[in-house]
Amino acid sequence: MIDGAAIASEIRSEVAARAAELREQGTTPGLAAMLVGDDPASESYVAAKARACEEAGIFAETFRLPATASREDVLGLVGQLNADTRFHGILPQLPLPSHIDEREILDAVDPAKDVDGLHPVNLGRLVRGDTGGAIPCTPNGVMEILQRTGNDPAGKHVVIVGRSTLVGRPLAILLSNKGPGANATVTICHTGTPDIGAYTRQADIVVVAAGRPNTLTADMVSPGAVVIDVGTNRIDDASRERGWRLVGDADARNVREVAAAITKVPGGVGPMTIAMLLVNTVRAAARAASQ
Amino acid sequence: MIDGAAIASEIRSEVAARAAELREQGTTPGLAAMLVGDDPASESYVAAKARACEEAGIFAETFRLPATASREDVLGLVGQLNADTRFHGILPQLPLPSHIDEREILDAVDPAKDVDGLHPVNLGRLVRGDTGGAIPCTPNGVMEILQRTGNDPAGKHVVIVGRSTLVGRPLAILLSNKGPGANATVTICHTGTPDIGAYTRQADIVVVAAGRPNTLTADMVSPGAVVIDVGTNRIDDASRERGWRLVGDADARNVREVAAAITKVPGGVGPMTIAMLLVNTVRAAARAASQ
Repeated sequence: MIDGAAIASEIRSEVAARAAELREQGTTPGLAAMLVGDDPASESYVAAKARACEEAGIFAETFRLPATASREDVLGLVGQLNADTRFHGILPQLPLPSHIDEREILDAVDPAKDVDGLHPVNLGRLVRGDTGGAIPCTPNGVMEILQRTGNDPAGKHVVIVGRSTLVGRPLAILLSNKGPGANATVTICHTGTPDIGAYTRQADIVVVAAGRPNTLTADMVSPGAVVIDVGTNRIDDASRERGWRLVGDADARNVREVAAAITKVPGGVGPMTIAMLLVNTVRAAARAASQ
Repeated sequence: MIDGAAIASEIRSEVAARAAELREQGTTPGLAAMLVGDDPASESYVAAKARACEEAGIFAETFRLPATASREDVLGLVGQLNADTRFHGILPQLPLPSHIDEREILDAVDPAKDVDGLHPVNLGRLVRGDTGGAIPCTPNGVMEILQRTGNDPAGKHVVIVGRSTLVGRPLAILLSNKGPGANATVTICHTGTPDIGAYTRQADIVVVAAGRPNTLTADMVSPGAVVIDVGTNRIDDASRERGWRLVGDADARNVREVAAAITKVPGGVGPMTIAMLLVNTVRAAARAASQ
């Protein structure tokens, strides 16, 4: 089992060291989180990110607007944070209230402060093979897991199940980049693929990011393959006090009998996503400091 | 043999009809070409594009700067054309003189006027699955060829050989999009792939865009596959008066014996690229008119 939490903790230590260096040079990396409304899940995500920032020596502040905030209010806050030099990263916590166009808000964030890496300018740079800007956190976390567990994708066949903007698509671009840590042959499967198993069975590395439990079963994996499970799904579980448990997109219990390695869920790709957010924030601060 | 020139001519007629509509509504679609220096090949490309515009009822003007133009001169011209409402598309002809950073110039073009579709904002929108903006011309030409020859890629396995920003990468994104005309399972191979034939032999559709003759040989293609050859390579040919001829990336003579269909070179993907440039220009004009 690949322990993503342990790798994430290693990365967070590296981020803390880099943040300390930047502080010594006079730049305290800063992250501004935006919370619109009072969704309890969003509250707890933002709190977890702020805590992770503090531990890494990144200054974090959360800016709140009521659920009734207008489009202009939200755009106004983005403009204010774009101009505020204390912050090198801006994180509009999703989902935004349904009357707000999320895409418009995300696009209004200065690409230099887009630490999610999902601004079109940053996604476009990725297509160009330019990894100098912000890289989407979850795919970048997958890249780090592969690298730090000795599973260099170079020359390997990686099959990705799922074509989301958040994971599958940017990951395919990253993996097929020329250069160290990448250089894989990549196949993208999705709901339009007639027989996903026909592809995953040929993979050295399978990344499953479909958002559905049991998308990847043991018969779909070659002996010795490495499986990265990006899914986080709640399923009912009467044996738990809270009535549910988290499972990934792979049938982990059976897949682990066949695969050489598989990431844990929870505690696999999830913790990496926050770690890579910290990486993007400190990199944005370093770029700002060098200008 | 798939006749790209015939398909391109069909598309150019459609563009001409759309341009006539826009003119009737008071908007004459306009394309500004930028030519820096006096490279004869660039002169002839720009002339061909201008001629294609005229035939389609698109107003075209070429703006020239000497080879000694400074970065500021070139950026100044881009700024002037961004502001000139007669032009809905701006085309900096590449290559620019070596003392000019091409990327900086291309990035300075207003994304709304980027008819090459290679501005990071437009590439980024593509990653998001948003095909409402400019789409890179060559990959979009490949999509049109597939559609108009009855080779809908939906549910098929498309293997792309080549990971360029111009062709391979955006094409992989377009083909894996959800929706009509796309929805393919896509594999990207490249120089880092140990055995490209192992992938191409499994393909329903092979797109070869590697920039090297004989990248795709007959033994690498399954009987009945469709082959799209994006390559245009000059090779020595003493039997020709000019001493060379154009060949694609596939060994066409032998591949055509195995494949169900293969695009001509020249006269395949090449003419489609200009046709799709006209499509992007007219679409940009329509967007500007509707604002």
